Amino acid sequence: MSAAAPLRLGLAGLGTVGIGVVKIVQGHAEMIAARAGRPVAISAVSARDRSRNRDADLSAYAWEADPVALAKREDVDVFVEVMGGHEGAALAATEAAIAAGKDVVTANKALLAHHGQALALAAEAKGGVIRFEAAVAGGIPVIKALTEGLAGNRIRRVMGVMNGTCNYILTRMQSAGLPYETVFEEARQLGYLEADPNLDVGGIDAGHKLSLLSAIAFGTQVSFGAVELEGIGNVSIDDIRLAEDMGYRIKLLGVAQLTGRGLEQRMTPCLVPADSPLGQLQGGTNMVVLDGDSVGQIVLRGPGAGQGPTASAVMADVIDIARGLRLPTFGIPAAALSTPTAASSATPAPYYLRMTLLDKPGALAKIATCLGDAGVSIDQMRQYGHQDANAPVLIVTHKAAPDDVAHAMTRFAGTGVLVGAPVAIRIEEV
Amino acid sequence: MSAAAPLRLGLAGLGTVGIGVVKIVQGHAEMIAARAGRPVAISAVSARDRSRNRDADLSAYAWEADPVALAKREDVDVFVEVMGGHEGAALAATEAAIAAGKDVVTANKALLAHHGQALALAAEAKGGVIRFEAAVAGGIPVIKALTEGLAGNRIRRVMGVMNGTCNYILTRMQSAGLPYETVFEEARQLGYLEADPNLDVGGIDAGHKLSLLSAIAFGTQVSFGAVELEGIGNVSIDDIRLAEDMGYRIKLLGVAQLTGRGLEQRMTPCLVPADSPLGQLQGGTNMVVLDGDSVGQIVLRGPGAGQGPTASAVMADVIDIARGLRLPTFGIPAAALSTPTAASSATPAPYYLRMTLLDKPGALAKIATCLGDAGVSIDQMRQYGHQDANAPVLIVTHKAAPDDVAHAMTRFAGTGVLVGAPVAIRIEEV
Repeated sequence: MSAAAPLRLGLAGLGTVGIGVVKIVQGHAEMIAARAGRPVAISAVSARDRSRNRDADLSAYAWEADPVALAKREDVDVFVEVMGGHEGAALAATEAAIAAGKDVVTANKALLAHHGQALALAAEAKGGVIRFEAAVAGGIPVIKALTEGLAGNRIRRVMGVMNGTCNYILTRMQSAGLPYETVFEEARQLGYLEADPNLDVGGIDAGHKLSLLSAIAFGTQVSFGAVELEGIGNVSIDDIRLAEDMGYRIKLLGVAQLTGRGLEQRMTPCLVPADSPLGQLQGGTNMVVLDGDSVGQIVLRGPGAGQGPTASAVMADVIDIARGLRLPTFGIPAAALSTPTAASSATPAPYYLRMTLLDKPGALAKIATCLGDAGVSIDQMRQYGHQDANAPVLIVTHKAAPDDVAHAMTRFAGTGVLVGAPVAIRIEEV
Repeated sequence: MSAAAPLRLGLAGLGTVGIGVVKIVQGHAEMIAARAGRPVAISAVSARDRSRNRDADLSAYAWEADPVALAKREDVDVFVEVMGGHEGAALAATEAAIAAGKDVVTANKALLAHHGQALALAAEAKGGVIRFEAAVAGGIPVIKALTEGLAGNRIRRVMGVMNGTCNYILTRMQSAGLPYETVFEEARQLGYLEADPNLDVGGIDAGHKLSLLSAIAFGTQVSFGAVELEGIGNVSIDDIRLAEDMGYRIKLLGVAQLTGRGLEQRMTPCLVPADSPLGQLQGGTNMVVLDGDSVGQIVLRGPGAGQGPTASAVMADVIDIARGLRLPTFGIPAAALSTPTAASSATPAPYYLRMTLLDKPGALAKIATCLGDAGVSIDQMRQYGHQDANAPVLIVTHKAAPDDVAHAMTRFAGTGVLVGAPVAIRIEEV
C-alpha cells in the first residue's frame, strides 16, 4: 500500500458515537489527510436498524446488516467498534476482525475489561493492533498519556473520577442539598443513566475503565474481577454535608497501585480534600491523576462522554494507525503481561467515621475504646448539637488498615450506645 | 537493524536534565526495553566541563568534548539535546545531527522557537524526526496530547500557564501579600530564576512554548516574533488583591487562536476566574488548556520543570522513536505549514481597569464619558473608601476591543481627574 492510499474504516455501530465518527471523517477530511499523511475513509457501516433516521449522510458507504461480515470485508483496514456490550455481536465481530488481520479501534470498555487479554493475544499473533482511547475517560487522551507520554516512568498510582453520571449525581446532591434517590431520578429523566443504571451507579463502568488503566500502568493482565467495587447508592446527603464541613468532598474514586501487597484496584466512594483538583471536579467531567516516579503527578481533565469527545478519541486512534503507530494493546506484548496477585486489602488510609450515639454518659468513651483496641487512633473528632437526645459524632482517624477499621466497626455494635448503623468512608490522599 | 537492536543515544548536556535522563536509562533499562520493544542505551555524552562531579556514573559512555562531534558519531541513532541556548553549540550540534541523518530529541524551546521551521525542513528532507515534548510544560505530555490525542479536532484555542517561576511569584504575592520586588528576590535566592531573569519574568520562555503549541495547533510556521509579550514585572500587589476581591486571579497566561483576523498569540498577564482550573493553579505547577471542536476542553496539569519531569518527557520522545513512531516535527510536514498572518489585535474581551481619581465632583462621570466615547461599556464598577482624599476605582467592562480600551485609556489623561497612571488588564474567558 502506498503512503497516500486511504486508510479504510468499517464502522460498526451508528449510535451517538458512530455518527460522531462519521461527522469528523466527513467534516475534516482534508485536515485529517494532512495530519495522517493519507486520507481516512469509511468503506462500510453496520447497525441494528438500517431504517432509523440518522443525523448524517451514509449513502456513500456500503451497508452490512451483520457486523461480523463488516469486520471481514476486503475493503476494510480498521474495524471501528462502537456498538457496545461485552458479549454477542460486539465480541464476535471484534474476534472476526482480528482473525481477518484487521486493526481494531474500540470504545468498548466492557468488552476489553472482560476479554482484553484474549483479544490482545489474538491481535498480536496476527500483527494487528487494538486501540481503545475512547473506552476510558471519553475525550481525555489518557491511554496515550499513560502508554506513551509517561513511558519512561514506573507508575506508582493511577486515580480517577471516570463516570460522569456518578460525579454529576454526587455534585448535584452537594450543591442542591438533595438526597440520592431524588438526584438519581433527575439523572434518569435527563437520560444520563445507562439502560442498566447499575453500570453507572454501581461503579461497574468506572471499574471497567480502571482495570484497563491498571493493565497498562503495571504491565499486568486486565483483571476486572479483582476490582473492589462499591457504588454510590449508599452515599447519604448527611455524609456529603458533614464531609464538606471537614474540608472534604465525596467522589466515586478509582485507585490502582501495585505494592508489595499485590495489585490494589478500588472503585469506591472516597473523601478527597475539597481544594484538590479531584475535590474541585464538578458535574459530568472526568479526571485522571497519573503518578510516575520521575514525572510526579499529572492531572488530566475533560469530558468523559458525549458524541464529540468520544468520537474525538476514536479518531485519535484511527489517525495513529494511519500514521503507522503500532503498539501492543496494553503497552507491552500481551504475552509478557504478568498475572497480578490481587492485594488482600487496601493500603492503610485515614477514615471518616460517622455515627449517632445515645446521649448517655461514657458513650463516646466506649467508641474510642473500640477504636483503640483495634489499633485505630483518632485524629479529629466532632460532636454535633444533640437532636432527639442523640448525638451525631464524626471521627477522622489517623492512617489505619482497612481491616482494623472494619474490626472496630464490628465491635461498635456490641457497645449498645449506637443508634442505627455507623458509616466509614476512606479518605484518599491525593 | 533488527527489532531487538538497541536504540543508541548521544546525550549532549549533563546538567540537571541530562543527568535525569541518565538516571532513567540506567534505572529502568528493563522496563524501557519491554515497553519500547528494544533496549535504549547511551553511547556517548558531551558537556562543557568533563571534570565536574556529577550525580551519576558516566564511565560506560564515550566522552566527546564537542557536541557537534557527538552528533555525528556512528554509534548514535538519536541526538538528545539538553544543553540549552538557541545559538552556538546547541544549534550547530542539532544541525549536524540532522545532516548526519540522526533523529533529534530536544528540551530546547528557545532553539525551536527561533529555528524550528528550518530545522524541521532539514530533518524532514533527511527522513529524520525532531521531538520536543520536554520543551513545553515540562513533564506534561502536551505535545503528544495536541499532535496525536486531539488529531481529529480542529483546535479552537490553546491556553496555558507555562512558566512555573512566574506562577510561583504571582501566587506567592497573593498568598503572602508581598510586592513583586520582594518575591522576585525570594525566587532568585531559591534558584528559581534563569541566569537572565527576563527569560522568565519577561514572558519570553513561556512565549517560546506558546509559539510551538501554536504551530502544531494551527498548522502554521512557528512565529515566536509575532507573540504579543508582556511580563509580570508590572503586576502590582494592589491589582492582585483587588482582582481577588472581584473573584479573579492574575496569571501570566498564554493564549493562541486562529480566527478570521489571523493568528493571535499572546503571553500576557490576564485575569481568570478564581474558581476555574487556571485560577486554582498554585505555585510552580503548569497547566495547558486545549480546546478542540469535537472534544471540547481538555485540561492538563503537572510539573513544568525539574529533573524528573523534564527527563520523563525526553524519555517519552526517545521511547516513541524506539517504538517506530515517526511524525513530522509539528504534526504535518514542515513544507505544508502555512505562513501565519498575525492578527492585528486581540479578540475583544472584558477588561479590568483600575485607577485613582481625584475626589472631585464629576470625576467619575468624566471617566465614564471617555469609555462611552470609545465604545467601551461598563459591566461593574466599584469605588473603594477614600484614601488621602483620592478614590480608587475599579471597573470591569463588557467585552471590548483592545484598541478601544487603549483609546479610552489615552483619553483618561486629558480629563485631569486621574492620580497616577491607570491600569488595564484583560480578563480571559476560560
